[in-house]
Amino acid sequence: MSELMGNLLVAQSGGPTAVINASVAGVITEAGRHECVEEIYGGLNGILGILNEELIDLGDEKRSAIEGLRYTPAAALGTCRYKIDFKKKPEKAARDMDRLFEVFQAHNVRFFFYAGGNDSQDTSHKIHEEAVRRGYELRVIGVPKTIDNDLPHTDSCPGYGSVIKYNATTVMEVGIDVASMATDDGSCCIIEVMGRSAGWIAAGTVLAKRGHPANPPHLILLPENVFDETKFLAKVKETVDAYKYCIVVVGEGIKNAAGEEIGADKERLDAFGHPVLAGAAEKLKQLVQGKLNTKTRTVLLGYAQRAAAHCASLTDATNAFACGEAAVRAAVDGRSGFMVKIVRETQPEGAIKWSTDLQPLADIANVEHFVPRDWINEDGFLPNDKFVEYARPLIEGEVRAPTEGGLPKYVTLEKSRVEKRLAPRA
Amino acid sequence: MSELMGNLLVAQSGGPTAVINASVAGVITEAGRHECVEEIYGGLNGILGILNEELIDLGDEKRSAIEGLRYTPAAALGTCRYKIDFKKKPEKAARDMDRLFEVFQAHNVRFFFYAGGNDSQDTSHKIHEEAVRRGYELRVIGVPKTIDNDLPHTDSCPGYGSVIKYNATTVMEVGIDVASMATDDGSCCIIEVMGRSAGWIAAGTVLAKRGHPANPPHLILLPENVFDETKFLAKVKETVDAYKYCIVVVGEGIKNAAGEEIGADKERLDAFGHPVLAGAAEKLKQLVQGKLNTKTRTVLLGYAQRAAAHCASLTDATNAFACGEAAVRAAVDGRSGFMVKIVRETQPEGAIKWSTDLQPLADIANVEHFVPRDWINEDGFLPNDKFVEYARPLIEGEVRAPTEGGLPKYVTLEKSRVEKRLAPRA
Repeated sequence: MSELMGNLLVAQSGGPTAVINASVAGVITEAGRHECVEEIYGGLNGILGILNEELIDLGDEKRSAIEGLRYTPAAALGTCRYKIDFKKKPEKAARDMDRLFEVFQAHNVRFFFYAGGNDSQDTSHKIHEEAVRRGYELRVIGVPKTIDNDLPHTDSCPGYGSVIKYNATTVMEVGIDVASMATDDGSCCIIEVMGRSAGWIAAGTVLAKRGHPANPPHLILLPENVFDETKFLAKVKETVDAYKYCIVVVGEGIKNAAGEEIGADKERLDAFGHPVLAGAAEKLKQLVQGKLNTKTRTVLLGYAQRAAAHCASLTDATNAFACGEAAVRAAVDGRSGFMVKIVRETQPEGAIKWSTDLQPLADIANVEHFVPRDWINEDGFLPNDKFVEYARPLIEGEVRAPTEGGLPKYVTLEKSRVEKRLAPRA
Repeated sequence: MSELMGNLLVAQSGGPTAVINASVAGVITEAGRHECVEEIYGGLNGILGILNEELIDLGDEKRSAIEGLRYTPAAALGTCRYKIDFKKKPEKAARDMDRLFEVFQAHNVRFFFYAGGNDSQDTSHKIHEEAVRRGYELRVIGVPKTIDNDLPHTDSCPGYGSVIKYNATTVMEVGIDVASMATDDGSCCIIEVMGRSAGWIAAGTVLAKRGHPANPPHLILLPENVFDETKFLAKVKETVDAYKYCIVVVGEGIKNAAGEEIGADKERLDAFGHPVLAGAAEKLKQLVQGKLNTKTRTVLLGYAQRAAAHCASLTDATNAFACGEAAVRAAVDGRSGFMVKIVRETQPEGAIKWSTDLQPLADIANVEHFVPRDWINEDGFLPNDKFVEYARPLIEGEVRAPTEGGLPKYVTLEKSRVEKRLAPRA
């Protein structure tokens, strides 16, 4: 056991999720169990806020607010997409790193936790290496977070279970709606979900089928596969002929054979001369209506999907919280330079036992994990049983946030500022 | 009390809602309490199915399925947009009417209930008048249904409370998400909701503010108001300057001074030569990005909003069920040619007592009820306290549908067919 004592700093990075705050709640809760952790600080807006010495005192927050983080979406500490980029901007990156350690030192930060995706794990890794190089005693542990589910080595990423639970629920509901309207003329609905390069989010909506081929979604277009217009239209026609309606799910980033996103139309310019980025669903709608003459509507879930805490997965929220707890335990145990990962153990009777473990950050940073090809049907239009077996447990259980006046009652933090000790950043 | 005995027929019409099945459950439940109601039939796909003598025996359904209709979205009996149009197609309408009464007579239908919006109430009205003219003993009662909330005389329309509960929840969640991301550069999110001419749905999202001006939505564009680009952009800029982000809700049907929908761009043609109907949100996004240089994303809820039973309002579902019950009670009591309406009575201590009453169908058919001008702020961008006082009670309470494997467990009916007794429709 380490005898290192000092203050803890936790921050959030990248796109928010429905459960990233649950991880922060896990960090704070676990920190309270260890005497070596003196103050519990939060960095506002990720690295960006830390560089500006914008720290808040999480020890000042009400217990009920910390508890409320377990069901409150978005990034309660604020987030950023700021990257310390040694490759493209080495001088600026070096200055940033100097400043970070000035802030750490000024506030005696000895335990640092960063919740985020690929880029953020890379940042954590660099901070860990820098601490070692400088001989500054600091324990750095990455907390996984991303709806994209594209971090390697972990069973899944906190945020993913909730986004696919909400999206699959939406596909089910839209599917029943469209089916009940499809009387004499067939109709099609195209639901666009997030996912620029990895198709995990789109693939997850297959759970709405619940094992019945006739159930929607009838086609899922993954960004990993090249979009083939002819095959796509044939499949839509086949589906409408069979069921009178067709529900398509498309990952926003699907590309044509030339590697261009189909949602970007370079030939059409808007009023300001920019190419129109109407999105993949809109493009597909024009195709289906134009070539098949089938009434088509779109749904674009956008930010709603990653923020939908009202439909969050309890498994996901529980795992997110556990990742926060495990990060603190690891740091207190003297570990640094690791990311917490989720581990699944399937019991003989089929139940799943979730736990956590550690993976060196060096193995994580900037590696993107795609949906395995053998988890997708041969024609590429639907994930298969292997995928379903993987994804189904991730959406189990409902987080029931308290409500007030018919709306979820989410918490906001008081954010009492830690007094600055440094001159403003140059 | 009437001594009329015979069979009951219930059907659904127009766009589905999260609670239209609750009204059918109310009809079936109440019908079971009256001996004068012999068989309980459902018409598949509204009037269209009835014309084709496509009836199902709802008495054959499991009790659990009927109970499940109280939380199952979409139209369990199927729906249609078919209109018996005496104005435009008088001969066809006359033939349709003859056929309808052939079907009624062949199956001894004496109690007819049609759940729908303006057009459907008009159809019910015509059927009632025709029955009187023909001397065919038939009790016709309209059951209100529409997310658009544009039926007159009723306090509100079943379906409306649920759609605004889901939409307001989404605005809250997207708002927290965008706010937590808005670090150095401002950002804007435009959420498009349904509502071609009446702005009730867009207006309902004001509930997400929960009385705090800083909370989203910051602007609501109602289709009743002429869209003014300059004022809109000024308001977005003002909001981003104040809060670093801006959430806009737009009703899909907003129009410019020339009365044209702004989402339809006549100057841009798609690959097939049709005008591009990218939608209002997409159009506004191009404006904000182009003129204010503010990062902008869109959410298009489309069918998802009216089908979102996972986030349905208990008040709404309860009122919908009560409308179905009241319709049967009225018919059994000898009334015909009425629509059930919802009545609100505010108790001295502020609680609301909901009940139902009847309104002649003649007063309902084809009358569209708009958001009163004095329920909207002077600048037209937000509904005021009068609106909030009206809308808030409609979203109270949560319908907790059972779940299985992390997804809602909705019911489907067995739909056992009633044997046809007529030759196919000419």
